[in-house]
Amino acid sequence: MARGVLIDLSGVVYSGAELLPGATEAITELEAAGIPHRFLTNTTSKPLRAILTQLEGFGLSVPAAQVFTPAQAAVAWLAAESHAPHLLAHPALEEEFAVCRRDGPPAVVVGDAREHFTYARLNAAFRQLIAGAPLVALAENRVFRDADGELSMDAGAFVKALEFSSGVAALVIGKPAPAFFAAAAGSMGLRLAEVAMIGDDAEADVAGALAAGAGMAVLVRTGKYRAGDEETARPQPSAVVDGIAEAVAAVLRGKA
Amino acid sequence: MARGVLIDLSGVVYSGAELLPGATEAITELEAAGIPHRFLTNTTSKPLRAILTQLEGFGLSVPAAQVFTPAQAAVAWLAAESHAPHLLAHPALEEEFAVCRRDGPPAVVVGDAREHFTYARLNAAFRQLIAGAPLVALAENRVFRDADGELSMDAGAFVKALEFSSGVAALVIGKPAPAFFAAAAGSMGLRLAEVAMIGDDAEADVAGALAAGAGMAVLVRTGKYRAGDEETARPQPSAVVDGIAEAVAAVLRGKA
Repeated sequence: MARGVLIDLSGVVYSGAELLPGATEAITELEAAGIPHRFLTNTTSKPLRAILTQLEGFGLSVPAAQVFTPAQAAVAWLAAESHAPHLLAHPALEEEFAVCRRDGPPAVVVGDAREHFTYARLNAAFRQLIAGAPLVALAENRVFRDADGELSMDAGAFVKALEFSSGVAALVIGKPAPAFFAAAAGSMGLRLAEVAMIGDDAEADVAGALAAGAGMAVLVRTGKYRAGDEETARPQPSAVVDGIAEAVAAVLRGKA
Repeated sequence: MARGVLIDLSGVVYSGAELLPGATEAITELEAAGIPHRFLTNTTSKPLRAILTQLEGFGLSVPAAQVFTPAQAAVAWLAAESHAPHLLAHPALEEEFAVCRRDGPPAVVVGDAREHFTYARLNAAFRQLIAGAPLVALAENRVFRDADGELSMDAGAFVKALEFSSGVAALVIGKPAPAFFAAAAGSMGLRLAEVAMIGDDAEADVAGALAAGAGMAVLVRTGKYRAGDEETARPQPSAVVDGIAEAVAAVLRGKA
């Protein structure tokens, strides 16, 4: 059985403005079983503060240290590499990068920006790249489940656009970057082989965690899941279940 | 020696609003030598009518039948496949597609759209693709030389973005599609092996033409050319020269 669990947020714990059925009970069940967990999200459209407030609104009181976001990891990377951020993301994310230096050589940092992905902003980032800036992708997800219930294009599309025109390969900071999974596992004092991942993205969450070395990864049929997603993902999920309640049960049973 | 020549327009004959040095003389020289030529452009930001008007303004009177654009080729493809266009391009290009049927199943057609590449329009096209529409790329160029003299992101970046999120592979209609080169050669009664291509894009123009079977392809150091472009292109150019005058001389000499 896994000694710790990593849980995706959007599409697993909540979907849009709604808590998903069984989420609260599933988390309580993990705690009762003495299995620590961390939330690992690729959401880059809002700061950690807003994520915690949203969870609070669902009755989930989560310490900041238990939520891992690509923005936090990017801020640490920028500091280590002495780069100033050239941010191409939702304006709400800017507060996460307020601590960064402004005087170093720029690194282009791409997050979900939706309508803020204008040609002018994309082209400004492209020109930084061909002038030598590195390209940091907070995430490279293909799609997300939008507020209207349909799928929409996610930040990965715009990362690919910038890579194609500039010839610069992106460093991915969020899932499926092995270091991102490992940091969350490490915060529980565990190795990746000792943890299970629960997510709705067959690639970034599930195949990503398994490729990084997670002991188990369960795909849920909520959020962005589309029938057949598990067929094309490599490695394939340890299990595919209806939602977070069944996923936690599968983890606690300790088998797929 | 080549029996016909295909010439790119933007970056070879003109750059922005300026005729490039030696262009008029080079074309006259080809005509004097009895070598027919066709203009083969990946410009998708304006209709053929506007291209002909621009050439006229440079003192070049070119019959419409001697200019090959991806939009014309796409209109023919849509008719053959009984698709209605879902156009993601510059509004100025809409007149080219006015002849298309409106009642067939949609095909997403992507051209250069610049500031019209909004998230809302991209996402609407993405949703057509995941609902089953094919993806037609008028061009998939990486960059172009912008009016301010710097490079900017070209339509190919947005084609890659749509491909990535939707999982639908694009059918490329313009250069480097072999059928596009072949149609232009065919209009002169020639096979591709009998023609030479002159272009400033090491990939779409030069490697594309050679891969399609052109007998010769000359890269010019004008337009979007950046030092070293010829190093990474495969196949490599038959010759790399300063501009269209030297390119036509190389073609007439019949050797690289």
